Parts: sequence; C-alpha cells; structure tokens
Amino acid sequence: MPSAKPFLLAKMTWPEAKALLTETDIAIIPVGSTEQHGPALPLDTDAFEAEQFAYAVAERLWPKVKTIVTPLVSYGVSPHHMPFAGTVTLRAETLIDLVVDIGLSLAKHGVKKIVVMNSHGGNTPALSIALRRLYDAGLWCVQVAWWEIVADLVKQTFAPPYFHADEMETSVAWGLGQRVLQEKRVDEPGREPIAGYTRATMFAEPPNFSPVFDMTEYTDSGTIGNARRADPAKGKRIAEAAVERMVAFIEKAAALDTAKR
Amino acid sequence: MPSAKPFLLAKMTWPEAKALLTETDIAIIPVGSTEQHGPALPLDTDAFEAEQFAYAVAERLWPKVKTIVTPLVSYGVSPHHMPFAGTVTLRAETLIDLVVDIGLSLAKHGVKKIVVMNSHGGNTPALSIALRRLYDAGLWCVQVAWWEIVADLVKQTFAPPYFHADEMETSVAWGLGQRVLQEKRVDEPGREPIAGYTRATMFAEPPNFSPVFDMTEYTDSGTIGNARRADPAKGKRIAEAAVERMVAFIEKAAALDTAKR
Amino acid sequence: MPSAKPFLLAKMTWPEAKALLTETDIAIIPVGSTEQHGPALPLDTDAFEAEQFAYAVAERLWPKVKTIVTPLVSYGVSPHHMPFAGTVTLRAETLIDLVVDIGLSLAKHGVKKIVVMNSHGGNTPALSIALRRLYDAGLWCVQVAWWEIVADLVKQTFAPPYFHADEMETSVAWGLGQRVLQEKRVDEPGREPIAGYTRATMFAEPPNFSPVFDMTEYTDSGTIGNARRADPAKGKRIAEAAVERMVAFIEKAAALDTAKR
Amino acid sequence: MPSAKPFLLAKMTWPEAKALLTETDIAIIPVGSTEQHGPALPLDTDAFEAEQFAYAVAERLWPKVKTIVTPLVSYGVSPHHMPFAGTVTLRAETLIDLVVDIGLSLAKHGVKKIVVMNSHGGNTPALSIALRRLYDAGLWCVQVAWWEIVADLVKQTFAPPYFHADEMETSVAWGLGQRVLQEKRVDEPGREPIAGYTRATMFAEPPNFSPVFDMTEYTDSGTIGNARRADPAKGKRIAEAAVERMVAFIEKAAALDTAKR
Amino acid sequence: MPSAKPFLLAKMTWPEAKALLTETDIAIIPVGSTEQHGPALPLDTDAFEAEQFAYAVAERLWPKVKTIVTPLVSYGVSPHHMPFAGTVTLRAETLIDLVVDIGLSLAKHGVKKIVVMNSHGGNTPALSIALRRLYDAGLWCVQVAWWEIVADLVKQTFAPPYFHADEMETSVAWGLGQRVLQEKRVDEPGREPIAGYTRATMFAEPPNFSPVFDMTEYTDSGTIGNARRADPAKGKRIAEAAVERMVAFIEKAAALDTAKR
Amino acid sequence: MPSAKPFLLAKMTWPEAKALLTETDIAIIPVGSTEQHGPALPLDTDAFEAEQFAYAVAERLWPKVKTIVTPLVSYGVSPHHMPFAGTVTLRAETLIDLVVDIGLSLAKHGVKKIVVMNSHGGNTPALSIALRRLYDAGLWCVQVAWWEIVADLVKQTFAPPYFHADEMETSVAWGLGQRVLQEKRVDEPGREPIAGYTRATMFAEPPNFSPVFDMTEYTDSGTIGNARRADPAKGKRIAEAAVERMVAFIEKAAALDTAKR
Repeated sequence: MPSAKPFLLAKMTWPEAKALLTETDIAIIPVGSTEQHGPALPLDTDAFEAEQFAYAVAERLWPKVKTIVTPLVSYGVSPHHMPFAGTVTLRAETLIDLVVDIGLSLAKHGVKKIVVMNSHGGNTPALSIALRRLYDAGLWCVQVAWWEIVADLVKQTFAPPYFHADEMETSVAWGLGQRVLQEKRVDEPGREPIAGYTRATMFAEPPNFSPVFDMTEYTDSGTIGNARRADPAKGKRIAEAAVERMVAFIEKAAALDTAKR
Repeated sequence: MPSAKPFLLAKMTWPEAKALLTETDIAIIPVGSTEQHGPALPLDTDAFEAEQFAYAVAERLWPKVKTIVTPLVSYGVSPHHMPFAGTVTLRAETLIDLVVDIGLSLAKHGVKKIVVMNSHGGNTPALSIALRRLYDAGLWCVQVAWWEIVADLVKQTFAPPYFHADEMETSVAWGLGQRVLQEKRVDEPGREPIAGYTRATMFAEPPNFSPVFDMTEYTDSGTIGNARRADPAKGKRIAEAAVERMVAFIEKAAALDTAKR
Repeated sequence: MPSAKPFLLAKMTWPEAKALLTETDIAIIPVGSTEQHGPALPLDTDAFEAEQFAYAVAERLWPKVKTIVTPLVSYGVSPHHMPFAGTVTLRAETLIDLVVDIGLSLAKHGVKKIVVMNSHGGNTPALSIALRRLYDAGLWCVQVAWWEIVADLVKQTFAPPYFHADEMETSVAWGLGQRVLQEKRVDEPGREPIAGYTRATMFAEPPNFSPVFDMTEYTDSGTIGNARRADPAKGKRIAEAAVERMVAFIEKAAALDTAKR
Repeated sequence: MPSAKPFLLAKMTWPEAKALLTETDIAIIPVGSTEQHGPALPLDTDAFEAEQFAYAVAERLWPKVKTIVTPLVSYGVSPHHMPFAGTVTLRAETLIDLVVDIGLSLAKHGVKKIVVMNSHGGNTPALSIALRRLYDAGLWCVQVAWWEIVADLVKQTFAPPYFHADEMETSVAWGLGQRVLQEKRVDEPGREPIAGYTRATMFAEPPNFSPVFDMTEYTDSGTIGNARRADPAKGKRIAEAAVERMVAFIEKAAALDTAKR
Repeated sequence: MPSAKPFLLAKMTWPEAKALLTETDIAIIPVGSTEQHGPALPLDTDAFEAEQFAYAVAERLWPKVKTIVTPLVSYGVSPHHMPFAGTVTLRAETLIDLVVDIGLSLAKHGVKKIVVMNSHGGNTPALSIALRRLYDAGLWCVQVAWWEIVADLVKQTFAPPYFHADEMETSVAWGLGQRVLQEKRVDEPGREPIAGYTRATMFAEPPNFSPVFDMTEYTDSGTIGNARRADPAKGKRIAEAAVERMVAFIEKAAALDTAKR
Repeated sequence: MPSAKPFLLAKMTWPEAKALLTETDIAIIPVGSTEQHGPALPLDTDAFEAEQFAYAVAERLWPKVKTIVTPLVSYGVSPHHMPFAGTVTLRAETLIDLVVDIGLSLAKHGVKKIVVMNSHGGNTPALSIALRRLYDAGLWCVQVAWWEIVADLVKQTFAPPYFHADEMETSVAWGLGQRVLQEKRVDEPGREPIAGYTRATMFAEPPNFSPVFDMTEYTDSGTIGNARRADPAKGKRIAEAAVERMVAFIEKAAALDTAKR
C-alpha cells in the first residue's frame, strides 16, 4: 500500500525518491516556528500551518504536478516572542544555514525549484537571504506566506487588527485542525508604543513605522487581535482560497524552463 | 563658523560630539546602495536619496530634536542588479555586520536610538537582522523607507508600475537634486516571469508571488516603470511629505523613555 | 481534553508551558536525519526513531518526572549518504548552531537539563560540540543513542554486521512502527575498503580503523547488514529495554542539583 | 554636461560604467575612518584624506589612465580611539568582508586591479587580509598610505612626533581643505607607557615595541604631536608630492599585464 | 648528512619536499593537547604521545612507504580540563579550521592521504568534522587513536579504570620517554556523577551515559585511574603493538588508488 | 631533577603551573610558519627562530622575571609561498582564532600579559587582530619580531636586500643552530614587478609600494637576498643583541600594573 501522502520525502525509500526525481524537479519546504500564540493556540501553530498548507497544496497538485514535500522545519526566528514561556528562537543565521543546506542537498538530487511554505513573518528576512544564496547556486526559489496570497480576502473576511493569534490566524489554524483552547481565547487590541505611528496591525495606512519590538510592548497575553471572534469555517474558506492560488502558481512555476537562466 | 549641517557626525571634533551627546541620544544612519538605476540615473541614486532624506529630516528637527547623522553607508545588498555594469553588492552578512558595528559603537557613546534611513529595498532583510541584534543589545531601532511612509501619496501621484528607476523614483531623486540624464530616460513596463503572478510593481493585488530574481528577468534597460513621465516637482512634493511624516515620528521617538524596557 | 502526549512542547500554549516549567527543568530534544536507509526503510528512519524513543521515554516518566519533549530536528549530518537520492545533509556547523539555539532558548525559560535523543551516528561530533557550548552556558547536557545504551543486548540478539539499515536497525524501526517495504529488504555484508582493517560493523575487534567514507565505498544498496533477518518483535524488545534504561537514568538526572556546579 | 569628476563610479549610469570598463581595468577604493582626531580636526579626517587623495590621483591620471574611484568607505578599524566620543569602529572582520565584497563585485564587471587608498593605519591589518583574498581570486591589489609614500619628505618637513592629529596630519588635512578648528589645536608630546621602549612616534629608532594600546594610554586630548605648528601650505606640498608619486606608480601598474600570472 | 628523521616536513628544504612528494602522497599530522594530566605527567603528554607515535610509525615505514610527518599541532580541545592550571583549550571550530588549512595546503603539493595521529579523545569530534571537509575536497583521511587500536591489549594488560592519566596512559607515556614525576603519581578511582550510569572508565558495560562534564566532577587531582601501578615496560609493549598495527594499516592505505573515487 | 627549561609550559604538571602562576603573570607564545626558505634553509626556519628566541629570552630573564613559554605555533599565514612545495598556510582567520584561544585560556589561569614572539612577517596582520581581541578581553599584549628590534644593527651588519632567506635571515637562523644546507645557498637579487617602485627589500626608501604578491613574482629559488654571504657568527651577534633588547623590554613590561587600565 502506497503512502497516503505520496509527496512526503520523509516516507520514501531512496529508490522511490530517485524514481520520483526523474518525474519532477520541484520541492516544498515547510518552515514554521515554535513560538507563543496567546493563551488559546499552541506553540506549534506556525509549524502546523506551514505543514498543513504544504500538504494541501501538494495533494491538490498530485499527480499532475508531483511536488516533493520535505520534512518540516519546526523552528524559526522568534526573538520578539521570547518573553513568553516555551518560545524557541533561532538566530537568523542559523535558519539561513539550515535552509541553504536543505536546498543544496535537494539540488544534488535534481531539484531545481524550491518553494518555501513559510507561516511566520519573523522568518522572512532570513529566508530571503537563504533563498538568494540558493538562487545564486542555480535554483529557482520562492517563499510563500498564506496571508499575503489572500490579503484581499482576509480584509473582506476578518476585522482588524491583523497581527498575531488574532481572529484571522485563529480562524485559519482552527480551520486547518489545530488544537484550540476555545475558552482561553482573548480579544486584545494591542498597545501602540508610539500612538498613531506604530499601529498594531498589518495593512495599516501610512504613515506607519515598524520599530524593532518585543511582543510585550504590544500585549500581555501574547494575542494582538480579536481571537474570540475566530470562526473555523471562515478560516477553512480562507485556507482553501490560499491553497487554490498557490496551486495555480506552482503549476506555472513547475512548467518554467529554468535552464535558460 | 559652525558647520552648516550641525548634525553631521563626520564634521564634529570629538569634544563637539561629546557635548552634543549630552543633549541627544538619537542617531540616523543613512544606508543606500551602489547599483544600476537604468540609463538615466547614476549608480549612487539610493545612496543619494538616503543621504538627502537624512539631511532633510535632521535639518527640520534641529534644534528641537538634535539628531546625529552618521556617515553614509554607500554600499548595499544588490545581487539582483549585478548583471548591470558598475553595480557593487555586499553579501547580506557584510551589511549586517557593518550596521551592527556602527550601532554598537554609537551605543558606547550614549546613543540609545537608531534610525536607519534606508533607500534600497534589497537591504531590508539584512537591516532587519542587524537591527534586531542592536535591539537585543539594548538599543531602540527602526528602519525607514521613504516610499513606504508615503505609499498613499505615491499611489495618488504616480501611475504604476512602481519598481525601479520608475516614474516615482526618478521624480523623487530628481526632486532631491540627483543628476538625471533626461534624454536617456526610458519607459519599460517590465516583463513578467510568470504572467499574472509575478507582477512588475509594488502594491500589486493578490495573488502575487515574489520569486528570487535577477533584474534581467524583468528588464533589459535596468528600468522597470515609466521614467519618461518623471517630474521633479512632483518628486519634491512627495519627498517633502515623507520628510514631514518622518519628522513627526522621530520627534515622538526621541521622547520615548527606552530605559523602562 | 488534555493532549494525549502532555510532554509535547509543540502542543502547549505558553501559559501551559509556563506552568509546566515550574514543575520541571528537563527537556528532551529528538534529533534524527533525512537520509537513505536502503531499499526497505524510508528516509526518515532516524528521525522516526528519535521521536519514538523520546515519546516512549517521556510517557514512561510522566508524571513522576515531567520531561518536556521539543519538536523534532528532522535533519542531520549525512554527507556520506548523499550519493543516495533524497538524502539531505546539514553541514556540521549548522546542526551545532541549531541545537545551541534550541538549548539556549529553553534555558531562558528555566530548563536546566537537556537530553538529546540522537538516533544518527553521523550527528555525534556536531552534537558533542553543541552540547559543550550549552554546558559552558550553564546547562547539564547529555546525548543518548539507543544502540549504545543496549549494546550488550544488541550483540546477544542480532548477528553482525551492525552498520546501517541492518538487522538491528530494521528490527527496531519496525518494532517502533516504521513503514517497512518488506519485500525490498536486502542482505548485504558490506565491502571492506581495506580488507581486515576497515570492517563494516560496529563492535569490531581491534585493530580497526575508521577512514572517512561515503556509503558507496561499502554498499550499492544503501544497506550494510542483513535486513532480511529483521524481526519487529525482537526490535520491540530491544527498544523496550533501551527505554527502560533511559528512563532509569533520566530519573536520576532529573534529581541532580546542577546549581552546585 | 559631463560630471566634473568623470572617474566617480557613484555618478555614472550603468551604460556609462560599462563603456568606461572597456577602456580601463583599474579602480581606486578610498578607505578612511570615523574616529577622533583631537580637538581641532573632525571625526572624518581620515575619510576626507582618503577621498581627496583618490580624487587628486584620478584627476591627474585622467584621461591618460582612466581609473575608476568607488564610493568612500567611511568607517574603519578604530577600537583604540573608542574612549573618545563619536568614534565608530568596525571589527576587523567587517572591514575585511566589506572590501572583499566591493572588490569581487568590481571584478565581475572587468576590473582587474584594485588600489586601496587607505588613510588610517589601524585599517592596515584588515586591508592586508582582504586584499590577499582578492589576490587569490585573481585581482592585482595594492594598498597605499600617503605618509609612507612620502616618509622621506615628511621627515624633512615636519618635526616628530608623528603619530595622530599631529603637525604632519593636521597640515596635510588642512592643505587638502579639511575643516580645522584652529584655536583648538594642541601640542601634546604623548606619554610613553614604557619609557624608552614605546615611543609615541612613527619612524622611531630601535629598540621600539608596539604593544596594543588605547589612545588614552598616550594622550588625553586625542592628539599626539604638535598640531599648533601645523601649516596648510606645507601640508599641500606634501600631499602634492604624494599624489605625484602615486600617479607615477599607478601609471605603471595600469600597464601591467596581470593575465600572465 | 641527512636528517636522522627523513620524514620530517619541518626539516626539509622545499626542493627536498618537492622531491619526496614525487615518491609519496601520504602525510601524518600529529595532534595533541596542552592539558593537565594529573600531578605526575606534564601538560604536553598528549602532544608528546602524538609526536612519538607519528615518529615511530614513520620510521618503521621508511623507506618502504615514505610518509611525511608534519609539525605537531600542540593544542587541542580541552574545555573540561580548564579548571586545572596551565590547560589551554581551543574552541572546536579553531581546531577544525587549523586541520583543514593544513590538509588543504598539503593537498596543493600532491598529498592525497592524511593520517591524523590523535592522542586526545576531546579532539575527536572536531577532527571528524575537519576530516570530512578534507574528504569532500578529495582527500583520503583517517584519524587514529592509539588506545583504540590496541583496546584488546589494553584490557589484558592494565586494570580499569581507563580514563585520564591512569595506569594505561602513564605507562605508555613513560614508555615513550615522557617526563614522569614518579613520586607524585596518585591512584584515584574517580567519582561518579550519577552512580551506576556514568562510570569513570572507557569500555564500561551498558547502560552507560556520557553527560558533558568538567574533570572536576570526577577528580580533584586530575587523575582518574591508578597511576601508581604504571609500568613503563608495559607501556612500551603496548606502544610497540599499536605502532605495529598502524604500520600494517598505513602500508595498505598507501597502496590505495584514491583516484577512482 | 627540574627541567632544564623551567619556563616551558609543556613540561610542567598542572600543580607546577599553578605554583608558577602565583609568581608571574606573563607568557611568551612563539609563532612561526611552515614555509619555504629557499634551497638552503628548512621549512621550519621561522618556527625554529621563534622558539629559539623565546627560549633565549626566557632563560635570560629567569628567575628574576619568570616568564612562561607556551608550546610553539608551528604554522603561519604563508599564502605567498604556496607555489613552493611543502609550504603550509593557514587562513588569517585561523591564526587569529588560534592565538585568541591560547590567550584566553592563559588568562583564565591568571596570565595578564602576552608576548607573541613572531618570526614571520606574513603573520603580522592576523596577530595584530588577534592581540586586539585579547586586549579588549583585558590582556596586555605585544608582538615582537626580532628583525625590527635590531633593524639598526641589521642595516650595519648585512647588505641589502633584506627579504627572505637572505644574508640576514640565513645568518641568524644559522647562528641559532638551524640546519643549513650550505652548498645549496644562492644569491638572488629578486625581480621587481614594477621597476623602481616595488623594491625587493625591507627598509627601501620611498616611494615604495607593496602590492600583494606571490613569491614567484620575485624569485624562482625562494630566496631573495644573498644567502651565500651568510655568516653564523654575525647572525649570533645579531640574535644576541635582539635578545638583550627584548629582555630589557619584557622586564619593564612585567613590572607594569595593568590593573589600572
């Protein structure tokens, strides 16, 4: 009986991997974090999201486009969450090295295209640097963050603030099947360190500035947003839309001829 | 006769610096790049912008808020422009180390707040990582990019695409006094490596994806945008608006009590 | 309903982690690899073993000793397996940094003792270096490899060679529930690059030398050993014995007063 | 109207740089420092000198030898000056990386010869290491310090001690147009940490030893030397002589066929 | 008169080295430590052993196999001995870099095979990582520790515990000619940090665990073992047996055709 | 019987080192190279010189000033000699790390002053950087090169050129007891890559420039200078004078109270 998830690198033997790598040259690396997500969501929320999105996208694409999904990178760059117990943070350099090593290893086996399924904004700078290194080594690379792919729908579906463990994130994680301590959810608008200029939400209108911060400057609970309004059905719809758009994009990416570069 | 720009660290003697540092604890580090900006703008366009914005902001704030402006960091992270002659790129790690060293040196003399005046998007990941290190060493830090501070006005004033050496950037650089080879300006809409999914402009509607790229995937001239429509008067107005908003923000930042952190 | 595995850091909210960290100061980090294990075992065999042993040990200890199990490190140092498709290798330095970052993060939340549950021999040098750094930062640290803990029983239970994806490893992984492609199992004694001096087995009698090698110097299939003789029942017994001994040791370690150091 | 300084990389567009790079393969990188220079000279004195010498040399050479002058590296390795306010120091490693990155970028565009115009002795070890790396990458490299090039004339023109912000340096900087707070100039012979063995001057007769030091071991004012005797006319003559010698040398260097190496 | 030790790289001129390198492609790098060895043995005991074994092996092989012996690496990775005066420790990274640099330099001159004669267990992780890097650069590499090569004879000849500056090591060092302060020798069984699980000896039966440690957790004198029973005659016999086995192995290694890899 | 060289750290037991460290806080680290020295001098010439000077100085000072001499660093930074067989080069970074690690280890045992006895000019940049790091960690540090200490006498005693394996160096090494293949000595004036500007000697009059170079640009034999004129008696006198001056200096250094810094 074949694996229920035929795209999982982890569960292939090497001859199976070898065979699959004659059919495809694209791999998805899910990258999350181990960081506080308020009193209702577990520390692995980002990791869980990254993995679920990677699985859903690969499932949808299979067998038309046979992407490979590598093992999850469970840890991310989360220094701003360290005041909250249980958070683990990598130095940015560590995540860079980790993703570069994974990418270069895959390239040796014939992978030519890397999709990093990233679910933690704090990882973005390190991933940008890592992927540039991989690009310079000949790989086509992209990082994808679900909330950016569906930013239009997010704004239609959920009220601000959009920040962390908020209505949007709680809904999506819940919709994806994450453990949610429902009674622990809180609504917390988020303090503003400099009123009017450091708004506690994504998609804020200018002028908005982003000083480096610890989460404790904005919140005591770890949540910024209205987790009580979270709705798994809405989350599922948003997740579904994100998957759809990613699938459409990766189909085109898979067809690119990167040899011409 | 005192210097015409009393905020320039470069032109102070150490006793002057010492005296000023009893009155202020905030410094602006301008960070640019040395990278191609199409056939009409010189390689130092980002560096020039960063310096001009830093000067303008410091001038406006003085003497109410006495910010210090450090010497320009002329080089940035520009690997994607390397196919164009004259471009110089730092590895991301080099820029991180450079900004960290500058920041830690300033901190030893009493600076507690760092504003990085960044005019090159390619620097953002490295600067994020550098500033986090400085934050962890006790500094309050922020990076500011003029086009983000006035994104609303940019969209009202200039037509898309907004990308590189375009109508917006040519106007602003020109308005700030940059050398512009007017007859060399070109309009170039920018190719799309994956049609519909990798749009050659900022502020694109979702779904939009950002694969790692070399500029040559989008343009042959180095310009993406309509430089022929550039207007220095409009550029000056936008720059003025950006300065005004930065000034208002830095005034508030200067008043923060970071010791409580 | 509480999590079925109450020791999983990943599935705790931060207030849960905080509460648990008032009761315990010991954490288990499972570290595996993503590397070929012959034609019958998947690439995640080491990772799977590390996680299963960590879970079994933590389960047995709970609630007498409440150890925390962190998310799995799925990737290890496997350059010698790179000729086989699908293998991913980290540079030793990357694994060092990764484990150091995890350890230092845990220490900030009150963890004082780290058990690395390592199931891949190739990780040992990097882990030794990482754990020394953590020790120098004040942590008590140990790495545990199941086959060393029960080397006596292994020698009684299985025939040599003991090397990779062999009778011993296939039995234990199988006994732990790993996917095994039974019909694909092979017996492969392993070539000897220098006859009589580089024996293809652990526990070889002196004189035995260990030159640096790629697995292809010893095997074409990726297996060295007799995987066809593998028996999940035997594997389960060995695993059970290893868990028992680890549990006894960790109980004592948990009781150590490391403050006196 | 062409730029008044046709050798400035900063002010070229990329097509201009491309055209120039078909005519020349030599570039000058000015490297200075941001460090205290006593009560009369500003913090940018070394940077100012480096830039002025680079400009003067390039001007003199043009158009016979078309050297390119890159943007200034304003920061250097100045830990020994850190006790004086306003000083910024890079770690040696940072300056190494910075110069290597600049050099390798230039090499990609066809530059084959690098002249580092260095005006700060504290940079020398880092620059030596950086230039060796560039040499190993195929570049011809040299670092030039003006006071070494005219050491004979310096000894004839100025009295010792020759150390920092002294008669020699104040004269030359002044002669080059640097801001000088004339009334603030001081004469300070410099203490000797170990009398007779650690003389506070260059060109000291043996036995002379050079322990690592902070400037505060030698001076309270930041000056070591007789700045009151400084004479901009003498400085101008020395600078002129240095430029002349550098020009003669670079002419020959430009004619070298480095391909034979 | 030729050198009495014709294999010493240090004492060759470069033309002699060049000539020899046409006849051989194998080199021995002795690596020791500078660390406490109890009250009877000097700090260079490991270094002395490494050098003596290298010399003895090379002498025995010459001229049948002309191995080159490089200068001694006197320093090793000894953080666990730092509580004892005089110990010098390298960071693991430093030893890695050092051995890599030596190996790559040798490779440039035609060396294809590296034998690291290591006499300090604490060096093993760093050496493993260094040699893997050299292997990846095309070299055949092996590290050899004398006590492992004759583990069978050690167990027959000396009583446990086998740990540090014990009967075994004192005998062998003495037999090789090391300075021994005979009257200072002590017998010290070694404490067990976790009784029954962290036995103070090599070759302990399972279950045995190896937490990271400082030597002071096991001993106050620096000795763990029975140095008073040491016997130089026995030590000489063991050393002789180790040399014999190494010689036999290196003869075969020298005959390997590594080009086929 | 006490060691004939009571200052050798290598030959002390740890209690002996501990006792000595209550009487002194100064240590000498000899640093050499393993690099070609022409056809007459062995590859260890610099290392041999460093060790001999360290021994001679320590002997002369004992017991008035009890300096400690650490084990020799046999390898240095010699990339420019790599075209000659047998040369081993460290990257500058490796030597920096090595010396820093040694220095920090000594500091933990009470050493407060470090004298690096360096006999290879190519090491100077790396040593400068290493010693600055140690200085910043609280140590007093100096590097000493014998030819600089007696530059006046060298110029009186030997004819130019002074460069490498020349009359001066051959004489001194010979005078110190180095193996010299007398019949192999050569006189080689040294080519000048840029005639009149890159003179093949130390102490050249300005204008003199020092491009980065490989020795092969100056010499085919590896010698630059007149080795045939070498005279061990003269060498001995120069060495003696250098030792005398070093001894006088170190006596004063030993008396410094570095705690006041």
